[in-house]
Amino acid sequence: MERILATYRIIAPESESRVRAEALAAEQSVEMPLSAIDDDRVLAETVATVEAIRPHADYFDVTLGIAAATTGAEASQLANMLFGNCSLQPEVQLIDVVFPRDYEKAFPGPRFGIEGIRAAAGVQARSLTCSALKPQGSTVEHLANLARTFALAGIDVIKDDHGIADQSPHPFAQRVPAVQEAIDAANRETGRRTMYAPTFSGGSAALAAQARIARASGVKMALVAPMLIGLPAFVELRTSLEIPVMAHPAFAGASRIAPAVLLGTLFRMLGADATVFPNHGGRFSYSRETCLAIAKNARAPWSGLKPVLPVPAGGMTVERVDEMLAGYGPDTMLLIGGGLLSAKDRLLERAREFVRAVGASA
Amino acid sequence: MERILATYRIIAPESESRVRAEALAAEQSVEMPLSAIDDDRVLAETVATVEAIRPHADYFDVTLGIAAATTGAEASQLANMLFGNCSLQPEVQLIDVVFPRDYEKAFPGPRFGIEGIRAAAGVQARSLTCSALKPQGSTVEHLANLARTFALAGIDVIKDDHGIADQSPHPFAQRVPAVQEAIDAANRETGRRTMYAPTFSGGSAALAAQARIARASGVKMALVAPMLIGLPAFVELRTSLEIPVMAHPAFAGASRIAPAVLLGTLFRMLGADATVFPNHGGRFSYSRETCLAIAKNARAPWSGLKPVLPVPAGGMTVERVDEMLAGYGPDTMLLIGGGLLSAKDRLLERAREFVRAVGASA
Repeated sequence: MERILATYRIIAPESESRVRAEALAAEQSVEMPLSAIDDDRVLAETVATVEAIRPHADYFDVTLGIAAATTGAEASQLANMLFGNCSLQPEVQLIDVVFPRDYEKAFPGPRFGIEGIRAAAGVQARSLTCSALKPQGSTVEHLANLARTFALAGIDVIKDDHGIADQSPHPFAQRVPAVQEAIDAANRETGRRTMYAPTFSGGSAALAAQARIARASGVKMALVAPMLIGLPAFVELRTSLEIPVMAHPAFAGASRIAPAVLLGTLFRMLGADATVFPNHGGRFSYSRETCLAIAKNARAPWSGLKPVLPVPAGGMTVERVDEMLAGYGPDTMLLIGGGLLSAKDRLLERAREFVRAVGASA
Repeated sequence: MERILATYRIIAPESESRVRAEALAAEQSVEMPLSAIDDDRVLAETVATVEAIRPHADYFDVTLGIAAATTGAEASQLANMLFGNCSLQPEVQLIDVVFPRDYEKAFPGPRFGIEGIRAAAGVQARSLTCSALKPQGSTVEHLANLARTFALAGIDVIKDDHGIADQSPHPFAQRVPAVQEAIDAANRETGRRTMYAPTFSGGSAALAAQARIARASGVKMALVAPMLIGLPAFVELRTSLEIPVMAHPAFAGASRIAPAVLLGTLFRMLGADATVFPNHGGRFSYSRETCLAIAKNARAPWSGLKPVLPVPAGGMTVERVDEMLAGYGPDTMLLIGGGLLSAKDRLLERAREFVRAVGASA
């Protein structure tokens, strides 16, 4: 019987570790007292096993063997088995997941991955650059002008701010063709292949309509927050879109699921080609180790799954380009948004400095 | 300009409260330095406002005024504006949300609510009873037999365990007609109207297929975890299903969003008719105050929105019926799962005791 090895950190006295581990194994599988189960097959094949208990000073780590069959090879049920009920127990964190061989074959995984994004952007040797259209509430004209400036500067990927969705100042159906057109025009001037990644949001009907508009406009990339639209909806979108997908961490509440597991491993298996995360030393409190762990899980060899492009972001500046690339290596896309926009009238120049700094690092 | 009043608890020194409040207002709206925004309309209408800062001993509470228009009246974007990026800041919790008048009209809200569930169950005066089919991994025959026993005992609602989804031991297409048939047969014997609430899970295609099977089988209620399938998918499902919807809290990680806000207010606005939550004193650590706050938000008057049926659960026993009903009052459905199943051969008797205890409280 194939088992998913899920490791949980439990903040509780070590004397409780065996009892807590067994309670968690029941909670995350049959959710009832084992003594009330008569079926030997269920006891052997369905109940999660306690594979290891590792004590630490103020907490202990428990590795459960969750029967792969209980996830039904489906994203919402996988999330349920990994962190459904225990997400409601504040002393429990999910810190690691190891899937059995070939488990990932039931999920789409990245269609393009790092290599596909590099090919689409026409960038081989150096790291990639990314900036964001902001602020939400702007006119479509303003956002298109901004996109033109970034494209002229040679930014590789221009994404919507994740707060720019389908609201009245900039409806998807008006904004996306206008921004794509501005970028196309700039690309003709520069000879580059800058891509636009608009925000996809809403339910399945809205996502399908947005996919149609994006396709008709020649959009070459998509920005999606899997936790906002839902993990199964993310899988469906990945399956229907034929462009690279950049995952955004909004609503991921990642302090309860280790960021490397959620933004690295899980988003990758579900089909992200690039994954955005808050870099250390910015507006968020992720440590350097956490960030490097996300990048590692995004790119580490994993049977047939393409590696995912790490996109550190969140309050970054041009001054940090060298240090970031030294840490993450070249298979990285740097995302600087507000740090460029602060230059205001000098935006084109600042964006060019960003592009130059990344180019110089190759 | 209509504002959503969202209150966040920030664990940080009080001396930082003004700076942190303003940073949060930018983070949850324009996500860029305000000094780089030239458009006066955006500054006035889009940037979130700091409405109040309330200091406490070790933390402070900040109320932001989030422009309602920025949510685009859509569930994923609403979650994004309320708790998108700041879900990644472990020191920030969302503790309260107040919507402007009529904001909820853009969302479906409960179709049936408490009154509709009471009418469907044929129960007026007393509280309702609920139990769960467990464990996952059982045969369809076992689950159908269990359902028959609960129905004969007079349980009002028999739900799938939330871990029973669409897996091979009990595929939805086989399990749901079989269980519904067993309950129908028992109802003919008892003259009661016991309802079955199967678990809906997966992406939009799977949910649509499950809805067709449920309709064809005469299923009268649905169990859904909004956070597992995604909030916009939950809204779509609520809109297409014509039976009461019971929301399950799996994957809600509710310690970062106040449970009363997520499981009470938000699930209600998005269309749940009943909302399951872990009762105090069970397997989860919610306090009595937290549980009463969920029930309050589920039932409090809210313009045109029907009240939602609170469903305390999670390690409850028949012995606690009186105390629970004293706390929650009669517009409540008590859910006891494992606590009944532990009776094994005495299941019918124990389930009847549960039904009797609730009946006696009327």
